Amino acid sequence: MNTMDNQPRELEFWFDFGSNYSYLAMMRIERLASLYEVPVKLKPFLLGPIFKSFGWDTSPFVLQKLKGEYTWRDMERQCEKFGLPWTRPSNFPRRALLPLRVALVGADQPWVCEFCKQVMYMNFVADSEIDDPALVAGILTSLALPAEEWITRAQSDEAKAALRTQTEEAARRGVFGAPTFFIGDELFWGNDRLDDALEFAAR
Amino acid sequence: MNTMDNQPRELEFWFDFGSNYSYLAMMRIERLASLYEVPVKLKPFLLGPIFKSFGWDTSPFVLQKLKGEYTWRDMERQCEKFGLPWTRPSNFPRRALLPLRVALVGADQPWVCEFCKQVMYMNFVADSEIDDPALVAGILTSLALPAEEWITRAQSDEAKAALRTQTEEAARRGVFGAPTFFIGDELFWGNDRLDDALEFAAR
Repeated sequence: MNTMDNQPRELEFWFDFGSNYSYLAMMRIERLASLYEVPVKLKPFLLGPIFKSFGWDTSPFVLQKLKGEYTWRDMERQCEKFGLPWTRPSNFPRRALLPLRVALVGADQPWVCEFCKQVMYMNFVADSEIDDPALVAGILTSLALPAEEWITRAQSDEAKAALRTQTEEAARRGVFGAPTFFIGDELFWGNDRLDDALEFAAR
Repeated sequence: MNTMDNQPRELEFWFDFGSNYSYLAMMRIERLASLYEVPVKLKPFLLGPIFKSFGWDTSPFVLQKLKGEYTWRDMERQCEKFGLPWTRPSNFPRRALLPLRVALVGADQPWVCEFCKQVMYMNFVADSEIDDPALVAGILTSLALPAEEWITRAQSDEAKAALRTQTEEAARRGVFGAPTFFIGDELFWGNDRLDDALEFAAR
């Protein structure tokens, strides 16, 4: 008999730093998950190859002009509602290979959530390019970490392969956008479903 | 000076009876809007021509297989959350020309919201074809209305032209899906934004 049966289940948070609705989820998830007492596992992946598998060469917010324009207005309103700062990125969607690899090699580290929030801030508030070793090093250093060491690990062939493998896992499990939350095999899509996903995990 | 300045503004609810997320909004809007004291104006339109203008010959939930499969699971969970009955329609998206025309010619009638809820129920709970004069007449009769008279009005050239014009207005104002809510020119998309739209209207 499993004595863990009444424990809340882990929530997997699949995200790409280029995804604006992942920004909302990243900034909210730590506090919300602690209210529900649900453990969170960060799952960085590349959204680009997922979109490519649908025949799209970029974000649907770029390909679908009306929905894209709406998205930027929606982001303003959502950030106001959640009390989050917001700047529409001058480059969208931003490439985020290096920070995603750092988030992946650091996935079990105590600093990973703070690192991810800072990368999101640089993209969606400071409007900075984030696939940049100097920027990533700056964030790691601000967290009192050995920046060069983590960046070297993140740029290793193993780390590159691991991000590809994680992206393939996303595709295999039916991820079609970000953020995506899994509790076991139960998939919830979008920041709008974060509360429902936590509720489901805590049942 | 306008003495109406502190009155909540009207919310326009743009919907198609074939749209599953419009079903959620239709079943919720009357009660929610009364809590916010926001008047609601029903705006039936045809989603098909909007999708066609994007080069899509049917719903994105049919065209995008993964998102479509997700949508049906999401609907089950959303209906459970809102305490609404749900049956996945065996035909999707359903044609709804006649009931949309009735909703349009009856837009200012006191029974229109009840009529619309019953049409939605027939599509998303009873799993019935709704573009059917007998079914529409049955609903009108159940509301103690002269069914033949309203159906004749709905099938007139004026009513047909009015639904086309309303659909063109949707396109012109940037509607790209359903449900869509307008407060003045402020557009909110999706059942997930109904509360935000009402909040905005009530400010």
